[in-house]
Amino acid sequence: MIELRPIGIVRSPFAQQSGTPAQPSFAGDEAVGTVEVDPHLEEGLAGIEGFDRIWLVCWLDRIGPVRLTVVPYLDTEPRGLFTTRAPSRPNPIGMSAVRLLHRDGPVLHVADLDLLDGTPLLDIKPFVPDLDGGPAGRCGWFDGLRGVADDRFGAGDTEDS
Amino acid sequence: MIELRPIGIVRSPFAQQSGTPAQPSFAGDEAVGTVEVDPHLEEGLAGIEGFDRIWLVCWLDRIGPVRLTVVPYLDTEPRGLFTTRAPSRPNPIGMSAVRLLHRDGPVLHVADLDLLDGTPLLDIKPFVPDLDGGPAGRCGWFDGLRGVADDRFGAGDTEDS
Repeated sequence: MIELRPIGIVRSPFAQQSGTPAQPSFAGDEAVGTVEVDPHLEEGLAGIEGFDRIWLVCWLDRIGPVRLTVVPYLDTEPRGLFTTRAPSRPNPIGMSAVRLLHRDGPVLHVADLDLLDGTPLLDIKPFVPDLDGGPAGRCGWFDGLRGVADDRFGAGDTEDS
Repeated sequence: MIELRPIGIVRSPFAQQSGTPAQPSFAGDEAVGTVEVDPHLEEGLAGIEGFDRIWLVCWLDRIGPVRLTVVPYLDTEPRGLFTTRAPSRPNPIGMSAVRLLHRDGPVLHVADLDLLDGTPLLDIKPFVPDLDGGPAGRCGWFDGLRGVADDRFGAGDTEDS
């Protein structure tokens, strides 16, 4: 077993999965909030103001059981879990590339949030597409689909898909 | 505290940090290996062959102490940890966008590896740049630099940067 300790918390306008943007790229003007980093770690944020976008690596703490086949928010077909960003994962780690608006000390003001209020923050990384292999090439079943979350991966949801 | 359980293991030609590619985008022809996913999770890999690139979310298990200011492999200046991909993080979670060559059941053959042999795998996600906000805009200190890893973040390294 591996143990993690959160380094901060996400404050967002979304209290429940249903209606939360399914991805940062589908978030609207209301999807703004803050990332409150542990003040003891503020030194590590030096220079982050120079980035338009950052990765938030979070612990998706309000999901239900693991499902290896899911119907993702963006699609109507069952897909292998690891070809989706569905949160019902063995290790529910979320990666969100949010827009950084400004910084107040250890507090980051961000837009394009797709995370629930109170989500534990595990890490922040710079968003630099050139580091990550650039253009994607083939992207399987993804193909210009759009969507918002519903309850399908919630702890209280008993559907099978 | 949050507890994770690895879902597989990375097999790579790199036994030590020194000389390992600093990022998938800097990896050469030798940076090929396999990702051995727990066979009980194979169902979740259905359709992954349709992706040219996938995210490996890993636990960087051989790093030294946390450093909030680092000189990254790609640079010569001290930078805030969270503006870098340096592994000396409070929660050393790595994100690598590797190239998927083919799949043999629960074993993925990949290229552009920047991970050490034996690295625990936590998650796999599809690599879909359109989901993640598209082009980055400003990227702080990153600016076309290139590099390979050395020992600076190793468990046995006592340097301060």
